[in-house]
Amino acid sequence: MRVSVYREASFNSAHRLHNPSWTKEQNERVFGLCNNPNYHGHNYKIVVKVTGEVDPETGYVIDLKIVNDLIKELITERFDHRNLNLDVEEFKSLNPTVENIAIVSYNLLRARLHQDFDLQVRLYETPRNYVDYPT
Amino acid sequence: MRVSVYREASFNSAHRLHNPSWTKEQNERVFGLCNNPNYHGHNYKIVVKVTGEVDPETGYVIDLKIVNDLIKELITERFDHRNLNLDVEEFKSLNPTVENIAIVSYNLLRARLHQDFDLQVRLYETPRNYVDYPT
Amino acid sequence: MRVSVYREASFNSAHRLHNPSWTKEQNERVFGLCNNPNYHGHNYKIVVKVTGEVDPETGYVIDLKIVNDLIKELITERFDHRNLNLDVEEFKSLNPTVENIAIVSYNLLRARLHQDFDLQVRLYETPRNYVDYPT
Amino acid sequence: MRVSVYREASFNSAHRLHNPSWTKEQNERVFGLCNNPNYHGHNYKIVVKVTGEVDPETGYVIDLKIVNDLIKELITERFDHRNLNLDVEEFKSLNPTVENIAIVSYNLLRARLHQDFDLQVRLYETPRNYVDYPT
Amino acid sequence: MRVSVYREASFNSAHRLHNPSWTKEQNERVFGLCNNPNYHGHNYKIVVKVTGEVDPETGYVIDLKIVNDLIKELITERFDHRNLNLDVEEFKSLNPTVENIAIVSYNLLRARLHQDFDLQVRLYETPRNYVDYPT
Amino acid sequence: MRVSVYREASFNSAHRLHNPSWTKEQNERVFGLCNNPNYHGHNYKIVVKVTGEVDPETGYVIDLKIVNDLIKELITERFDHRNLNLDVEEFKSLNPTVENIAIVSYNLLRARLHQDFDLQVRLYETPRNYVDYPT
Repeated sequence: MRVSVYREASFNSAHRLHNPSWTKEQNERVFGLCNNPNYHGHNYKIVVKVTGEVDPETGYVIDLKIVNDLIKELITERFDHRNLNLDVEEFKSLNPTVENIAIVSYNLLRARLHQDFDLQVRLYETPRNYVDYPT
Repeated sequence: MRVSVYREASFNSAHRLHNPSWTKEQNERVFGLCNNPNYHGHNYKIVVKVTGEVDPETGYVIDLKIVNDLIKELITERFDHRNLNLDVEEFKSLNPTVENIAIVSYNLLRARLHQDFDLQVRLYETPRNYVDYPT
Repeated sequence: MRVSVYREASFNSAHRLHNPSWTKEQNERVFGLCNNPNYHGHNYKIVVKVTGEVDPETGYVIDLKIVNDLIKELITERFDHRNLNLDVEEFKSLNPTVENIAIVSYNLLRARLHQDFDLQVRLYETPRNYVDYPT
Repeated sequence: MRVSVYREASFNSAHRLHNPSWTKEQNERVFGLCNNPNYHGHNYKIVVKVTGEVDPETGYVIDLKIVNDLIKELITERFDHRNLNLDVEEFKSLNPTVENIAIVSYNLLRARLHQDFDLQVRLYETPRNYVDYPT
Repeated sequence: MRVSVYREASFNSAHRLHNPSWTKEQNERVFGLCNNPNYHGHNYKIVVKVTGEVDPETGYVIDLKIVNDLIKELITERFDHRNLNLDVEEFKSLNPTVENIAIVSYNLLRARLHQDFDLQVRLYETPRNYVDYPT
Repeated sequence: MRVSVYREASFNSAHRLHNPSWTKEQNERVFGLCNNPNYHGHNYKIVVKVTGEVDPETGYVIDLKIVNDLIKELITERFDHRNLNLDVEEFKSLNPTVENIAIVSYNLLRARLHQDFDLQVRLYETPRNYVDYPT
C-alpha cells in the first residue's frame, strides 16, 4: 500500500540566466530578457512528493513535520529572499534555470531522506511554467 | 489510444487522528493538534482518475455520469457533512489520515468500476496537503 | 494616498449549525446536513483587509508583521484544529455560521487595531462560499 | 538527468458532441445537453509536457519559445475563437470530445517535436473536467 | 450588522459578438475573432453577492438554497450548454458581451430577490476577463 | 448602467526594500529579509479595473485592447524582467513596496485613460499579499 504525499513551500528570489563561457551577444540571444545583468525575480513554489508504505500504527507515510523541516533547512532558509546567483553556493557556477533549481533541490533533499522513500520535486517558476525532476 | 479522464468532487467532514492502542501522551506527541478529542475538520477534494481506451463510437473513455454516480453513492453521500470517526463505518477502526481516506475511497470505487479501467485517487486534505493512491 | 493591504490565513475547524431554542425538527429543516450532531468541518480561509495612509518613510500602510501577529493570536491559535462550538468561547452561545465567524473575527481584530486603519474581513467556508464583513 | 517541463496555453471554442451515424434520439440520450445543435462552448486549457535531458550549456531541456511557437501555430491559431465542428478540419469527421481534442493536439505536436523528447498533453475542458494523453 | 454573502455557479455557452446594424467589415474591425459567424465559447462563472442583515435566529443573511434555486432557474438552466445568440431570448436583440450578460443576469435575479437585499453580479468570461454590475 | 471591467497582466521583477536616509541597522530591523542588498524577486500580478458606461453600440465599457496596450506600454514593458530599484526610473528614489508599485502603476495608467472612466489597480506581490489603490 504505497501512497505518495505532497508538501508545498515557496521562496521569493532574484536570479539571472547567464553562461559565463559565452559572449554577451550569445547570452542575450539565448536567454533574452532573462539575461538582464541587474537580475529579475520570481515567486518559486516547490512541491515535494514522497512515496512510501503507509505505517499501520500512524496511518502516515511519513510525519510531514520531517519533510517540512528538511524543506525549511535545505531550501527555503537558503533560497528565500536571496539572489540565487550571488547568495546561494550551488548556483555560483550553475545557471539557475528552473530545471537546475529543481535538480539541486532534489539532490539536497534526497541526501537527507531515508532511502525507503521515493522522492520527486516539482518546481514552479511562474504559475504557468514549471518542471518535474526526476521524470 | 488510452486516455486518462479526471473528475473532481468534494466533501466537508470532521475528523480526529487517534490510535486507541496508544496512551493519551503518545497520541498527543505524534498527532499534535490533530488529536483534539473534540475534532477539527476539512474541505476534502477528491480527484478520480480513470484510464482506458477511447470508444470510437462516442469519443469517450467512459461516460462521466457513471463516475459521478459512483463518487456520489460511495463517497460524498457517506462522507460529506459527517464526522469520519463517528459516522463512517470504515473509520471506526481505522485512523482517518488523508492516506487512509484515499485508500478507502480507492477500494470503494475499484470494487464497482469495470476492470478494463485503471483507477487512481488523489485526495486533498487542504489545498497544500494531498496524496495519491496508488502511486 | 490611502491603500488597502490584504493578508490571508487559514484554520481547519469542526462545527455544527444549531439553534438550541428550536426543536430537533426545526433545526434539521433549516440547517439540513449542517445540523449533524457529530459535527462536520471546513478549511476556513480568512482575508484581512487593512486600509490606511502609506507611510512615506517605509512605503508601508502597516508592517504586515503586526497584522500577522494579531491574526495568529486572536484567530488561528484559538480556532485552528478546534471544534468551534465546543472549544471556542465566542461560539458557545452563538451559532458558528460563516457570517457569525466573520463578525466575531472582525470584532476581535478591530479591538486591537489602531483606529486610523479601516478594517474588513472576508471569510471563506469553502472556495465557493464566502462572506464579507462589514459590507 | 531527464526533466519534464510544462507549458500552458488556452483557447475558447464552440463545439457540439454528435455521432452522425446515430439517430437524433441516440445522440440526445448519450450526449445530453452537449448535443445541442446550436453548439455550446468552453475555455479550453492545454498543458504541454516535454521531457528530455537538461542541456549543460543552457540549463534548459528545450527553449520554451520553440514549444510556444508550436502550440501557437498548430493549436491556438487554429482552435481559438473557432467552432471546432465547423471550422477545424480534424473535427469535421471526428467527435470533438475532450479526449479526441487531446489526441489530435498530441498528434499535431508530436509530428513536429524532435524524437529525443517525450511528449504528453493535458487538456482541460473545464477546471474540473480534464484528460491526459498519452497516459 | 450587514454582511455580504457570495455564491458561485457556472455555465458553458457558445456566443458571437455582432452588431446587426453594422457592416461585416465594421463588425470584424471592432469585434475581431469574437465576430466569427460560426461562434466560439466560454466557461462562464457567475458570482452572486447578496448583502443584508444577519438574522439572529439563524445566523444567516439568507438561506443560500434560495439564492441557488434562483441562479439555477433564471440563469444556468437557461444559459448552460446553450448558444446565447440563438437559444436565449434576452440576447436575440442584445449583443452578448460579458458586460451585457452580467446586466441581464442581475436584472433577472433582482426582479426575484426581496428588496431588503442588495445585489451585485460578477461574471467571468475567462479567468482573467471579468466584470461587476452594478459597480 | 455603469459596469466595471477587469484586466490582468503580470511581470517578474527583482527588488529590494531600502530607505537610503536610514542606517543599515534601521533598514534591517524594519525591512528584514526584504532589505537583502543583492535583491530578491516576485511574480507580480496586476489587475486593472476600469469602470464606465456600457456603450449601446458595442456592448463594451471599453475595448480591452486599449487597456491591454496601455498596461503593456506603461507597465509590463518597463517593469518585466527588470530590477525595479536599478532599472525603473520611478523607483530610483521611491521604495518599491507593493503599495508604492501600485500607486505608480495607477498614476501611469490614470494619466492616459479618458477621464470618463474610473480606475483602480490591484497588485499582487505574492498570491497571499496584495493591495488596492485607490481604496
